[in-house]
Amino acid sequence: MIKLRDSTVAIVGLGLMGGSLALTLREQNACHKIIGVTRDPRTRERAMARGILDAAGADLSLASAADVIVLATPVRTIIDQLARVGEVARDQAIVIDLGSTKRAIARAMEKLPLHVQPIGGHPMCGKEISGFDAADANLYHDAIFVLTPLARTSPQTISFAEAFVRSLGARPLILDPERHDKLVAVISHLPFALAAALMTTADESSREDDLVYALAARGFSDTSRLAASSTEMMLDILLTNRENVAARMRAYSRHFAELADFTEEQDEKSLRAILQNAATKRQSLFRA
Amino acid sequence: MIKLRDSTVAIVGLGLMGGSLALTLREQNACHKIIGVTRDPRTRERAMARGILDAAGADLSLASAADVIVLATPVRTIIDQLARVGEVARDQAIVIDLGSTKRAIARAMEKLPLHVQPIGGHPMCGKEISGFDAADANLYHDAIFVLTPLARTSPQTISFAEAFVRSLGARPLILDPERHDKLVAVISHLPFALAAALMTTADESSREDDLVYALAARGFSDTSRLAASSTEMMLDILLTNRENVAARMRAYSRHFAELADFTEEQDEKSLRAILQNAATKRQSLFRA
Repeated sequence: MIKLRDSTVAIVGLGLMGGSLALTLREQNACHKIIGVTRDPRTRERAMARGILDAAGADLSLASAADVIVLATPVRTIIDQLARVGEVARDQAIVIDLGSTKRAIARAMEKLPLHVQPIGGHPMCGKEISGFDAADANLYHDAIFVLTPLARTSPQTISFAEAFVRSLGARPLILDPERHDKLVAVISHLPFALAAALMTTADESSREDDLVYALAARGFSDTSRLAASSTEMMLDILLTNRENVAARMRAYSRHFAELADFTEEQDEKSLRAILQNAATKRQSLFRA
Repeated sequence: MIKLRDSTVAIVGLGLMGGSLALTLREQNACHKIIGVTRDPRTRERAMARGILDAAGADLSLASAADVIVLATPVRTIIDQLARVGEVARDQAIVIDLGSTKRAIARAMEKLPLHVQPIGGHPMCGKEISGFDAADANLYHDAIFVLTPLARTSPQTISFAEAFVRSLGARPLILDPERHDKLVAVISHLPFALAAALMTTADESSREDDLVYALAARGFSDTSRLAASSTEMMLDILLTNRENVAARMRAYSRHFAELADFTEEQDEKSLRAILQNAATKRQSLFRA
């Protein structure tokens, strides 16, 4: 199998994730050529002018010259592109994606023609800002990068994908798509839903008292940060992982209602037990 | 009235807030003397050794030498101390507190003897870490510092308190205690409750799959951060502001349940409308 160093990588979608990937591969001199595919002419021009890409265009057909095709668009766009990438991809091309949910993508990957080698990917390093202008060569550094091989994915492809991930400074973690989707529902999609509901509540309050945001400090800023995430990206995530997300949202709602009840009833003992457990867990998980 | 520059300030409680206050006053050379009152002998020794305090002790009676007495303990301890500080305070001493809720404290301040000048205070610059070791001379810099005068608070005392706040590099904002407590219920106490319920849900999930935390990235870290706050401090806050907090928690629960319903029902249009509004508000509120 070809080495990453000698390969041509096509990146489809040059937003935060795809743009950062292109930047990092170029800075690390990790591959032979980088082809960028995006509909946005301004992004193509800027990425070419900065020397990040060797070729750029709007059409997926450009990926026919690539050994590795990285789909870095929102989840439902990835699924649409997977229906077309089989016709485009050369023999033994590796198709990897960066989508935030993996089951629906794995199902679409199963249908790829057999001359293509698919593997799912999800780097755990999102930001609430998006677009090529937000691209950052350090985004992947030290991040966990989940890889979800299919039954049909060859051991050589898995090894190649692991080397690809390591070339970005990230840490590969092999998971099956179902387990991945359950885990991110708790650790990533639920926090987004919290933040969005918090902003909705604060917005409602700000119509009663316009000083609400004047008192907002780091606590509010951090807790609400994910609400600024791209709506299109998050809709795709929530809707392609809806059973897991809804189940975790219901579990969370029960815990939250309990906190509200204990507060209202001044049940200090029960409240203390829950808050102390949460504080201890959070303190042990992250330092300062 | 005495100038801050010539006055002796007693700080009761040398945790994050009181310790940072002492540090800042000393660094700014803002007052004549600083007296520290804390039960913790180690904190007294360390603050004396670092030259932050001119005198230190465990008993509130030490505050009898002060022109300004700052109560920097948790809210219900402040209320207990207010019942005793009137006997200790010299004539025309200013009594200010740094508690996170203001109505219950204002009620306790009303009962102070008339030779004392009380005014409530709440600097909007908490952290999830606590204790003297976390004290930071920049904590107050550029923070909003709410002042809640009582009907009995003299204009001179209000001016003195504003100068005191500015000497810390913070920005005074005069509010009545009721309005303050409604505002912080949304912007500060609700986010804490969210974070605590999130940690409770994640903890539950981690007992089903021990990889949950392995996938936690900045999104989870930021959204859950407030859950690490001191349980004793937060219990005092929730219980002395319970009507406002419970009301906001119920409003939030309704918004959150709506998000869960729309996700489950795949009602993309309704989901998009809410998420887009939340994203737009969050993006306009804080930049990057």
